Amino acid sequence: MAFKRYIPVESISELTINRLSVYLRCLQQLELEGVMTVSSQELADRFHLNSAQIRKDLAYFGEFGIRGVGYNVAQLREHLINILGLDEERRVLVVGAGNLGIALSRYSGFNTGGFRIVAVLDADPHKVGKRIPGSLAVEPAGDLARIVKERRVHIGVITVPAASAQRAYDELVDAGVQAVLNFAPTQLKGHPEVKLKSVDLKINLELLSFFLSHASRLASVG
Amino acid sequence: MAFKRYIPVESISELTINRLSVYLRCLQQLELEGVMTVSSQELADRFHLNSAQIRKDLAYFGEFGIRGVGYNVAQLREHLINILGLDEERRVLVVGAGNLGIALSRYSGFNTGGFRIVAVLDADPHKVGKRIPGSLAVEPAGDLARIVKERRVHIGVITVPAASAQRAYDELVDAGVQAVLNFAPTQLKGHPEVKLKSVDLKINLELLSFFLSHASRLASVG
Repeated sequence: MAFKRYIPVESISELTINRLSVYLRCLQQLELEGVMTVSSQELADRFHLNSAQIRKDLAYFGEFGIRGVGYNVAQLREHLINILGLDEERRVLVVGAGNLGIALSRYSGFNTGGFRIVAVLDADPHKVGKRIPGSLAVEPAGDLARIVKERRVHIGVITVPAASAQRAYDELVDAGVQAVLNFAPTQLKGHPEVKLKSVDLKINLELLSFFLSHASRLASVG
Repeated sequence: MAFKRYIPVESISELTINRLSVYLRCLQQLELEGVMTVSSQELADRFHLNSAQIRKDLAYFGEFGIRGVGYNVAQLREHLINILGLDEERRVLVVGAGNLGIALSRYSGFNTGGFRIVAVLDADPHKVGKRIPGSLAVEPAGDLARIVKERRVHIGVITVPAASAQRAYDELVDAGVQAVLNFAPTQLKGHPEVKLKSVDLKINLELLSFFLSHASRLASVG
């Protein structure tokens, strides 16, 4: 499908794109419930979102709603799937068969909706050849370049220790992946042509800490 | 320490608080490099942030910078640690000793900067008593309430399968935790007095998918 207007992808923030994912989840829920149309205000009220933000985020990609009526739930869901590129298969390779790598290779979200894990690699010869329950057998890290090419891997996921993460990233880039998701708690030197997203799991604990801290302070003040 | 003005904690978005965590990481990096003062513009340029956003986010909590000079790096770092409540110990309990639970219990970010994992629980008797390398021994899920009270647990982390997540959440709330971090891919019915943050790992893959999709589309257009 064609979007009504092209905008430079660099000008759209990651937060906007993350919100599109959230809207998609909400629309899938509404569709399950048999809801046919929804206004931005109803969507906002139901899922604790911001209606002006919804309209602004969607306006980047075209005009989807009908004034006074709202959005067709099924159509907007399809649009979001298309905008997020979830209508295409994305082959994913995991580097590091430690606990996190194994957890992600078995995580339902990493094997549905277009995503498919096609390899899990590890440098440890004791892990190579072992089958991950409900997933694949671990393959040698030394085969990374060959596997990326043969299986036409789009996305590399890094779950090795921090000290090995830059090397894993460089190997993925050299092998030709187009995007990397890094879970190693370290800052990687990125390559301009390869989209890099580092996931900082600690940031979620810090968010909770903020609320704990202020809830008790406010309580003690009040 | 006292903040210059109290604002209702509910009126501050999670995104603002996540950005405070990011600013804290940046300031820690600058301090390592020996930088003494930094303006919001320099901070933005160096770490690809938005200077107006930085000023707005910090203004919620007081007046930290000096006009024309900028922020004292060490002082602002201390303020952020204080605002995020990272100057207090936060005791964390993990429910679910599967791969993700084990990975998190060994994750450096969950055992530094005030956070300390004090228990890892599982319902599987085969797992109970086994020591996680570099972490604790697994304890029975049935002891959750006793452990939360005895060890004064602040934060519960849920890494059980989706089908068991609501039960784990309810048990944590009943036992008296004040905040819950949920990794199970399911929507939980939350309790108004307990802060709940659900982490959706798939959203990161969808973000990469968006960039893959638009990079190739833009390339084929251009």
